[in-house]
Amino acid sequence: MWISRDLTLDPRSRGFHLVTDEVEAAVPELRELAAGLLDVHILHTSASLTLNENASPDVRADFRSWFDRAVPEDAPYWRHTLEGPDDMPAHIKASLLGPSLTLPVRDGRLALGTWQGIYLCEHRDRGGPRSLVLTLHGE
Amino acid sequence: MWISRDLTLDPRSRGFHLVTDEVEAAVPELRELAAGLLDVHILHTSASLTLNENASPDVRADFRSWFDRAVPEDAPYWRHTLEGPDDMPAHIKASLLGPSLTLPVRDGRLALGTWQGIYLCEHRDRGGPRSLVLTLHGE
Amino acid sequence: MWISRDLTLDPRSRGFHLVTDEVEAAVPELRELAAGLLDVHILHTSASLTLNENASPDVRADFRSWFDRAVPEDAPYWRHTLEGPDDMPAHIKASLLGPSLTLPVRDGRLALGTWQGIYLCEHRDRGGPRSLVLTLHGE
Repeated sequence: MWISRDLTLDPRSRGFHLVTDEVEAAVPELRELAAGLLDVHILHTSASLTLNENASPDVRADFRSWFDRAVPEDAPYWRHTLEGPDDMPAHIKASLLGPSLTLPVRDGRLALGTWQGIYLCEHRDRGGPRSLVLTLHGE
Repeated sequence: MWISRDLTLDPRSRGFHLVTDEVEAAVPELRELAAGLLDVHILHTSASLTLNENASPDVRADFRSWFDRAVPEDAPYWRHTLEGPDDMPAHIKASLLGPSLTLPVRDGRLALGTWQGIYLCEHRDRGGPRSLVLTLHGE
Repeated sequence: MWISRDLTLDPRSRGFHLVTDEVEAAVPELRELAAGLLDVHILHTSASLTLNENASPDVRADFRSWFDRAVPEDAPYWRHTLEGPDDMPAHIKASLLGPSLTLPVRDGRLALGTWQGIYLCEHRDRGGPRSLVLTLHGE
């Protein structure tokens, strides 16, 4: 089985947001798979995806704190400043976290750890809706 | 061929550890594949996986030095401190390095570079055993 | 369909380089796929791959500026210094960005965002040619 599907996520504020349920709901066919993989790909260069702790909102706030300090907006060496002060740091953050996740599927479910949730990492102040391509395959 | 298998790694000390042999031994079926992919996924949010230099132990020690400085335990902005000072930095480090590896398989072997080894990146002081899901497919 | 193919990229200077066209040209069979995935894997531990903005060269220059500051060559804690001052930082940068990309394929093309291009991230001053393994599968 190969399924290729679009998913658009509503605009989110700058920060880290749990989207596991939205992603799973978009590919109900994963219930039919004994074993497989789901590739989740974001079609942008200023937002990214990661897996991390799905319980405490403080963890997601701390992600923002760390990334905003690690990649500062006011660094004197930025050349690409035309699109606003949040743009170039967003590109760096996007590549540090990466544009896609490969998730194992087993017995009709995503085989994630108890505490693993899918984060949409929105690095722009006004990123707008974000488009994903989901590719599911397995048997 | 689709194979989905569990692998539990024994507890390791905080730091970076070579586990290539353990991963390969867990999926002997890769010897039957002319071409394929092995997805290695860790089911945790405070440990991660990467590929890096498989020869010098100094490289692995230097990974720890850099990551411990880049994501400090005593940052004044951490909110999520209930689980100990090594917990929140572990979450950040885990996402910087990522929860999974997709490894090419060719002619019955992992097609890795001469110097590429699989690192278990243990970011907690006492992380305990770590659970992986291995998904092998190919032809 | 499973295809496993080698691709060697010519030596590049230290920095970030667009290689989307070279990668696509190496697997013309992706035109035959309605849905699939292309795994692009670099066989080195001091160079890496990422997706980011494919238009402005300033973005790629800013990537170099940030990474060179985030992982300094003259840090007093490096132990692995035998291979030159650019070597150990190159290993760290390689793992931060990662050794592979999984790219969705749809309707005979890579399903990337408008602004997404494949970067070869060359972290050594004289890295030489870089070898990739491309694994294409789909239907």
